[in-house]
Amino acid sequence: MLKVGLLGAGRIGAVHARNIAAHPQSALTAIADVNNEAAQMLATATGAEATNTDDILQRKDIAAVLIATSTDTHADLIEAAVAAGKAVLCEKPIDLDLERALRCQTAIAAASHPVMIGFNRRFDPNFHQLKIAYDAGDIGRGELLSLISFDPAPPPISYVRVSGGLFRDMAIHDFDMACWLMGAAPERVSASGACLIDPEIGSLGDVDTAVTVLHFPDGAMAVIKNSRRAVYGYDQRIEFLGERGLLSADNVLESTVRRANADTVDSGKPRYFFLERYADSYANAWASFVAAALDGAPVKVTLEDGVNALAIAEAATQAAKSGETVPVAHAANNLGQGSAF
Amino acid sequence: MLKVGLLGAGRIGAVHARNIAAHPQSALTAIADVNNEAAQMLATATGAEATNTDDILQRKDIAAVLIATSTDTHADLIEAAVAAGKAVLCEKPIDLDLERALRCQTAIAAASHPVMIGFNRRFDPNFHQLKIAYDAGDIGRGELLSLISFDPAPPPISYVRVSGGLFRDMAIHDFDMACWLMGAAPERVSASGACLIDPEIGSLGDVDTAVTVLHFPDGAMAVIKNSRRAVYGYDQRIEFLGERGLLSADNVLESTVRRANADTVDSGKPRYFFLERYADSYANAWASFVAAALDGAPVKVTLEDGVNALAIAEAATQAAKSGETVPVAHAANNLGQGSAF
Amino acid sequence: MLKVGLLGAGRIGAVHARNIAAHPQSALTAIADVNNEAAQMLATATGAEATNTDDILQRKDIAAVLIATSTDTHADLIEAAVAAGKAVLCEKPIDLDLERALRCQTAIAAASHPVMIGFNRRFDPNFHQLKIAYDAGDIGRGELLSLISFDPAPPPISYVRVSGGLFRDMAIHDFDMACWLMGAAPERVSASGACLIDPEIGSLGDVDTAVTVLHFPDGAMAVIKNSRRAVYGYDQRIEFLGERGLLSADNVLESTVRRANADTVDSGKPRYFFLERYADSYANAWASFVAAALDGAPVKVTLEDGVNALAIAEAATQAAKSGETVPVAHAANNLGQGSAF
Amino acid sequence: MLKVGLLGAGRIGAVHARNIAAHPQSALTAIADVNNEAAQMLATATGAEATNTDDILQRKDIAAVLIATSTDTHADLIEAAVAAGKAVLCEKPIDLDLERALRCQTAIAAASHPVMIGFNRRFDPNFHQLKIAYDAGDIGRGELLSLISFDPAPPPISYVRVSGGLFRDMAIHDFDMACWLMGAAPERVSASGACLIDPEIGSLGDVDTAVTVLHFPDGAMAVIKNSRRAVYGYDQRIEFLGERGLLSADNVLESTVRRANADTVDSGKPRYFFLERYADSYANAWASFVAAALDGAPVKVTLEDGVNALAIAEAATQAAKSGETVPVAHAANNLGQGSAF
Repeated sequence: MLKVGLLGAGRIGAVHARNIAAHPQSALTAIADVNNEAAQMLATATGAEATNTDDILQRKDIAAVLIATSTDTHADLIEAAVAAGKAVLCEKPIDLDLERALRCQTAIAAASHPVMIGFNRRFDPNFHQLKIAYDAGDIGRGELLSLISFDPAPPPISYVRVSGGLFRDMAIHDFDMACWLMGAAPERVSASGACLIDPEIGSLGDVDTAVTVLHFPDGAMAVIKNSRRAVYGYDQRIEFLGERGLLSADNVLESTVRRANADTVDSGKPRYFFLERYADSYANAWASFVAAALDGAPVKVTLEDGVNALAIAEAATQAAKSGETVPVAHAANNLGQGSAF
Repeated sequence: MLKVGLLGAGRIGAVHARNIAAHPQSALTAIADVNNEAAQMLATATGAEATNTDDILQRKDIAAVLIATSTDTHADLIEAAVAAGKAVLCEKPIDLDLERALRCQTAIAAASHPVMIGFNRRFDPNFHQLKIAYDAGDIGRGELLSLISFDPAPPPISYVRVSGGLFRDMAIHDFDMACWLMGAAPERVSASGACLIDPEIGSLGDVDTAVTVLHFPDGAMAVIKNSRRAVYGYDQRIEFLGERGLLSADNVLESTVRRANADTVDSGKPRYFFLERYADSYANAWASFVAAALDGAPVKVTLEDGVNALAIAEAATQAAKSGETVPVAHAANNLGQGSAF
Repeated sequence: MLKVGLLGAGRIGAVHARNIAAHPQSALTAIADVNNEAAQMLATATGAEATNTDDILQRKDIAAVLIATSTDTHADLIEAAVAAGKAVLCEKPIDLDLERALRCQTAIAAASHPVMIGFNRRFDPNFHQLKIAYDAGDIGRGELLSLISFDPAPPPISYVRVSGGLFRDMAIHDFDMACWLMGAAPERVSASGACLIDPEIGSLGDVDTAVTVLHFPDGAMAVIKNSRRAVYGYDQRIEFLGERGLLSADNVLESTVRRANADTVDSGKPRYFFLERYADSYANAWASFVAAALDGAPVKVTLEDGVNALAIAEAATQAAKSGETVPVAHAANNLGQGSAF
Repeated sequence: MLKVGLLGAGRIGAVHARNIAAHPQSALTAIADVNNEAAQMLATATGAEATNTDDILQRKDIAAVLIATSTDTHADLIEAAVAAGKAVLCEKPIDLDLERALRCQTAIAAASHPVMIGFNRRFDPNFHQLKIAYDAGDIGRGELLSLISFDPAPPPISYVRVSGGLFRDMAIHDFDMACWLMGAAPERVSASGACLIDPEIGSLGDVDTAVTVLHFPDGAMAVIKNSRRAVYGYDQRIEFLGERGLLSADNVLESTVRRANADTVDSGKPRYFFLERYADSYANAWASFVAAALDGAPVKVTLEDGVNALAIAEAATQAAKSGETVPVAHAANNLGQGSAF
């Protein structure tokens, strides 16, 4: 049984709390949050104890921590938890600053326990199935990968302000997805962004609509389309063109019900947002982490995967500003590209 | 070049006129209709001559007639045209009365030119593709065939009155389709009907909603669902369950356009009615007839196919009335079951 | 917290055990099975105690029992559990014999706690969505309901022998579904069956392929198609034609992945069988039962619903043998037709 | 009746010949081709006369010419035909060289008869439906348009050599489509290309896989994905994200037939190539031209539309080489943006 301390009792912390509690080999022991009340409520609901971060890091019975705090604390907490001998699952991103993430990478290089970054979408059953088919050679060599990743509605401006911008906050998931599917990291990045939805986003120097093209060493390309607003729901799709065909993964719908009447034929909308759409992904990611922590299974999403995605985000941010294709600064050497979970 | 006389210048006659004119090996020479004006208008539009039935039957240059007149004249005209040495394509049904149809079959037994019944749906490219796949063994032995055949809206009561009832008028297409797909004729028929749409239809002793089950000699069954009203369009689908899988043919839609918004996801409706849905079928059926008339190709839909469908319709009408399973009176021996066109 | 005793530790008992354990308001306290070892294993896996039926019925701390034993014990156990003052959720069917089921109904008429029959499919999120849309009037009055219910492969002959036949064992789910959707019980039943898959099934007097038509008092019809074998997976679909349109619920697929290559376009198959397809349904059904047992919420599937479905199964069995339309013996008055859960 | 001279009797000339002949208001009078034999064969098949270009331009009875010759002759022939007082429909592109196209524009500025460029895809019924829905405001302001345009297989190298490159030859259709849908011309273009399919294409300095991003004045973007090889067929799709939803137009399939078996579920592939996929588009484009030539209807695709698409192609070619975003040289002022045909 893996005893787990949860750092962060917000919306995403609550998702993790339920998955930790539901997994037969893990137990949620303690929860800490800067908001004590939030920690207390979640602790009550899950049968865990509310405490503080130091206590969690010092307790010998807690073997793993899940970091779901605000982004600016991630790198510090990863380092502290590794120093305390814990296995770590940390929400993305490692940090908004690539240099800080690289220092974190150096700092934990000798970690004796698994450190995993929470790119949960790799664990979506549909995307996973697509990855298996691609690795099995179903379409031969990949040539043109397309990711659609639209949120249903923009986040509050207060969130946008500290998000690091669309590329570091939102597209970073897609950068990881593209590298994972391709089994490689890109050399160069082109990107275009626009502020079409909310002028306030633009006034912060950010964009709400973007197209990024990743250029991989073998010439293959990945096109990533992002929008902060798709009013019909959370649009999350993949298409992968290869020399022998096309693999695609469609949205997961609210239901299979259709309604045909004199005016139209209606069908289900995509599940509204990530909590519904990626419910299975979070649970599968947790199971993968437990297997790594308890059974020595390989870490499926390494810290270096996190650094890699951040390096791409940095290049994309620059490329969108300059209109020029930008090389990716950091060469990734140790990506956790495993397809199975 | 096959010179053709068209008998009947109504809605369906106009469809045939265009197909006759468009085919590179046939020419529309003359048109007759009890309504002279209708014949004249269609003749003007197609470059043909308006005349009368006798003239068409007597003219030596006219090698084929297409019979698209009212049902009660079909059997007489088939016999007269065969006697006049013409190749004949006649709209379904041969007659509303099975005895009359059987007499027609006897009368034309020695016909030296092709006689074809216009079950055009066999020539629909989608259903044809399904037939080819079934005959190729894609699902092994067929076990349970399902036909959905809903009209968008009921016909005028004046039409219902002379239609012979839902089973002889509407379901007869499906009876032919089922036998063609199965490659066999049923031994027994069960049927259930209800008047749910328009009480006037019920007051004529007819039904507007029906379920028919055909029992084939090898135990396989076909379920046919009919409704006079599907407000979303002309619903024409097939599903065929066999020992090794399922073949299905979906509706042909108005367009491939979808629209997702905050409320719903809309997609195209089925094409509204038979003129749009079966436009290709009519043209393909005509091409098949021309090949039979000019090149000696086999007749794909024989008069006996027409008798067979009518015999099933008679049994179904009886079965719906009695609630009992009814044997099919007439054993079909010479069905034109060819799949290719 | 609802403390629950589970009777029956077989395949379906294990599904229930997990749902009982996972529900925040219920606890799996004790498990009994004629096979002690099976009870012990499941108890160990779920943290419950293995014991015997009498003990479960006598224990004061156990407020509810879930009956997942063999069919021939259902009626006795329902009566015993009600007599012991327990809330009861019993798997379908109540019994293979309608008379026995009716006696059970009389025996428990005065039960002071909820008695629910496990027609779990009503709790499938897709079918539930369809029911809500229908009740909201989306297609107006229902005219022709179609249920497709194909198993992926036939059960062992040993099971078929004690199953009561396809109509009582398999189609009974669909009979309940049809009545629930229609909000009514049928007056008459027509049915056709054939043995096309395994001659041994036929030698037992049973069928493996069937079509049933239910005739409702207002003239509406339901067509139910059953097959014991659809090699592509568990085919579970609904189509409901009404005066203002068509509602349909499609299969739930293994994944949303598609693969297009030079030969074909592949997409996901239906989930293989009921454990995968109806995983959510079982959990939702349990939640509904807990709400009834703890909070006095209405029982969504009453014992009378179970009697009603059995009466239809009996009529269908007879109709398939005689080829005649058969009246349904038992008039249902107290069906639990609620749509919400 | 519009008497038409056809210049060019190749594959696409034959398509036009059939449409000219089939239209009730146009007649194919004469055909010229540098290959006399080809002209003769097509003339025989269509009942036209084989002659030479000069003859066609001089004949008074010929009111319109359709130019389907090799690209390098287009501009000269447009100018000559306009000078001869003909209405002109010319295949795309006007020329591979933007300067030449601009000179042509100046030369024919005073043309008294319609001059139309053959961007036939605007006349595809599905894309047309999407355009109507967009113009009707179904998704509000357009933000991110995506075009997928993959050929099933690369053309012969001999063709690639004279094609002007992927952007001028293939993507030019999509550039026109994007401008038509947006109702505007882009200010700047980013593009990325790779040679992934055939190294010979690369050795000619061309690419076979490309991603282009068009930047419109209001900030909206269009992403165009091109590949010379999609082994599953001709992949031609549109998605248009706007403030109030998403409009999409899917591929047109070979048939609606599906096949589910123990291994997979198969469905129809996209129609293989443009002759099948855009058969209706060519006919509709011709009908639109006839309406302009005979009835004074507006020209739906102007020469300036052709210049505009070429200017974008030039910018895209440059952008793909430099990796920089490139301004579009020529500002389009007089685009023929009409949606109806």
